[in-house]
Amino acid sequence: MSAAAPGILLARAVLSRLIEPSDVLGQALVAVAGPESAARIAAGRQPAAGALRRSVAALLEENGVQASDRTFEQGLERWLPRAADVAPERDLATVARFGGKLLVPEFEGWPEALNDLGLGTPFCLWSRGPGRVPDARRCIAVVGSRDATSYGLAITADIAAGLAARGSTVISGGAYGIDAQAHRAALAGRRELPGDDGVPVTIAVMAGGIDRFYPTGNEDLLRGVAEAGLSLSEVPPGSAPTRWRFLQRNRLIAALAAVTVVVEARWRSGALNTAHHAAGLGRGVGTVPGPVYSANSAGCHRLLREGSAVCVTDAAEVLELADPFTVPVGEEPEGTLPDAQDRSPRADHDGLAAEDILLLDALPLRKGSDMQKLAVVAGLGVPAVRAGLARLELAGLARRTAQGLWQRSGR
Amino acid sequence: MSAAAPGILLARAVLSRLIEPSDVLGQALVAVAGPESAARIAAGRQPAAGALRRSVAALLEENGVQASDRTFEQGLERWLPRAADVAPERDLATVARFGGKLLVPEFEGWPEALNDLGLGTPFCLWSRGPGRVPDARRCIAVVGSRDATSYGLAITADIAAGLAARGSTVISGGAYGIDAQAHRAALAGRRELPGDDGVPVTIAVMAGGIDRFYPTGNEDLLRGVAEAGLSLSEVPPGSAPTRWRFLQRNRLIAALAAVTVVVEARWRSGALNTAHHAAGLGRGVGTVPGPVYSANSAGCHRLLREGSAVCVTDAAEVLELADPFTVPVGEEPEGTLPDAQDRSPRADHDGLAAEDILLLDALPLRKGSDMQKLAVVAGLGVPAVRAGLARLELAGLARRTAQGLWQRSGR
Repeated sequence: MSAAAPGILLARAVLSRLIEPSDVLGQALVAVAGPESAARIAAGRQPAAGALRRSVAALLEENGVQASDRTFEQGLERWLPRAADVAPERDLATVARFGGKLLVPEFEGWPEALNDLGLGTPFCLWSRGPGRVPDARRCIAVVGSRDATSYGLAITADIAAGLAARGSTVISGGAYGIDAQAHRAALAGRRELPGDDGVPVTIAVMAGGIDRFYPTGNEDLLRGVAEAGLSLSEVPPGSAPTRWRFLQRNRLIAALAAVTVVVEARWRSGALNTAHHAAGLGRGVGTVPGPVYSANSAGCHRLLREGSAVCVTDAAEVLELADPFTVPVGEEPEGTLPDAQDRSPRADHDGLAAEDILLLDALPLRKGSDMQKLAVVAGLGVPAVRAGLARLELAGLARRTAQGLWQRSGR
Repeated sequence: MSAAAPGILLARAVLSRLIEPSDVLGQALVAVAGPESAARIAAGRQPAAGALRRSVAALLEENGVQASDRTFEQGLERWLPRAADVAPERDLATVARFGGKLLVPEFEGWPEALNDLGLGTPFCLWSRGPGRVPDARRCIAVVGSRDATSYGLAITADIAAGLAARGSTVISGGAYGIDAQAHRAALAGRRELPGDDGVPVTIAVMAGGIDRFYPTGNEDLLRGVAEAGLSLSEVPPGSAPTRWRFLQRNRLIAALAAVTVVVEARWRSGALNTAHHAAGLGRGVGTVPGPVYSANSAGCHRLLREGSAVCVTDAAEVLELADPFTVPVGEEPEGTLPDAQDRSPRADHDGLAAEDILLLDALPLRKGSDMQKLAVVAGLGVPAVRAGLARLELAGLARRTAQGLWQRSGR
């Protein structure tokens, strides 16, 4: 691939090497000059004419980014020191060695959902693994604390496995805790990996290069994700997973998925950052409630209080957020809460009209009562009592004694 | 009191004896004819003229209640069978024996908030205890499952005690589980009972007469509430706590409080009924999240998903719902989550600008790096590196080595 790589691939590989994620000036330059000229300009191999600089500044302003006379110059100052490191053929060859490839907006396989990031759209995605990136409607991001509790790990496993079983792709960041559990459960949750349609069961979006598995404690898991699913990064092979790249990586997770679910998060947590990116992009955001005494749920409850996320408790509820018109919110959950568990003392009157509840209350459990007595106790007229007794008898809730009196029956 | 009781008191005592709670026809009759005529009509001691019946029907229609030609007749059929039981002087004497009294809309002490119930407004409130009913802005209802979990009991205690300590009146229904715990914690949460201002620390709104403590297992607690706070009911002494009255009682709890908090509730629960009443009245509704595996939190999560309630985790958050303009939502909670507990690996960069995060990432922990090297690693221009290093040095995050190189410092 690398020898015959088209100019656009090489140009975008160069851009991702020179320019840090979310450097909006770089993306504006690409939008105005095209990737190949942009790469040459960023690498100092082509001058940027005044007209081009003005167009870039205008585009920035349009996007609400203040641009000064120095903005373009400052960009070149940032980018040029790395020009010596540029070796796009080498980077493409590295990725090809892993069976990976470079995804770019101009060619097939590019996840269109990323374009919603506007000037924050990545230049390219370095990918590793047999899968393709599915349509965002099929992707659910599951993210959360590194230091997850056993509760958080359990519900993550349930949700991720449930999503995988329903054909969704579980996207996460490959970190310890919730992220790792989400990948792990998704891998375990679907038998055929990857699907015949090339849709991976899980995708890890990395903050550093896809040639390294970070954190090292997750190496086996992340290798498994790359072999059975897909590993993605906007920074080229060899790049370190810096704080900045972690923060920017979150926007990719949010953009790639229809829904972002935060399973556990502390009051301050990177997962909240991902949730806010998702909300800003108009994606669904769900969060899992937990015990209020758990610091690992404080961030989730914060999202709920801010109205930034919807409360979700299982995979089905997560999927409602992806497609809110398929299942009515508030429907009784199946299976999870068997009736036998519900010891509410008020089951008898479910569905009864007010008069019948009054009458049911008035019916003695033993002995019996006549209609006049029932009318007094229930606060109903005799005709209403007569009609109500017929309904309750039909429902198996009232019966007549041998003496012609009425008493409760059944449940 | 009973001997010289004004006609209005006697009339409303009669109405509460004859007519079941939420019988909107009865309330419409009172609105049209006044309580004294209404009581005589309901007891069959005065005929209802055609004009009056038409006015009642019109009022019902105005309130969205379909009235037929038989509506008024059916009301009389319901009420008349109980006319023989009417003994308002006796009922007033009974309540006076307990040191209680009858609250009516015409006299001081009536909680105006109840009038928000429209035709569902109770005829009167039988009260027992030294306290008065405070303004709704000061009242918080805390309700939930009878079969509470230890988690539910713990958070109920924290919230109710916190509310009591802040001067709120905790309203609940006196049932087992969450209700009982709310009363108990409120009683324990404030030293002086009742306050000098007559504001009770807690109010139990009963489904049956205030002469009986129901359920019997809560007798000691409810006696304590009546002695130190206030016990209320819309049904007269001697009335049984029927299912219907339990359901209707919930609307009184919702109306009396500025906020209703559901601490624990199953998927079907009377507490949800109270929450929906509160929402319908435009009151604040809060609910406490819990483990998704707990059936006792399923109703709470249901409220959150429906958007019927706001997520609350402590007394301060509950009070924000009573007065949302005093504390900004989303403010970091005090005390509950000490910083030491937050092991987030991303504390250093809080508040730093993007360039400084990039630079911080690039600074080596040991050895040192010069500005050119830092520019390449950080993806920044040398001038930006120079300015950023000055800022980071000032923040204690960077320092210069003896060799004039730069490295990380501090945290």
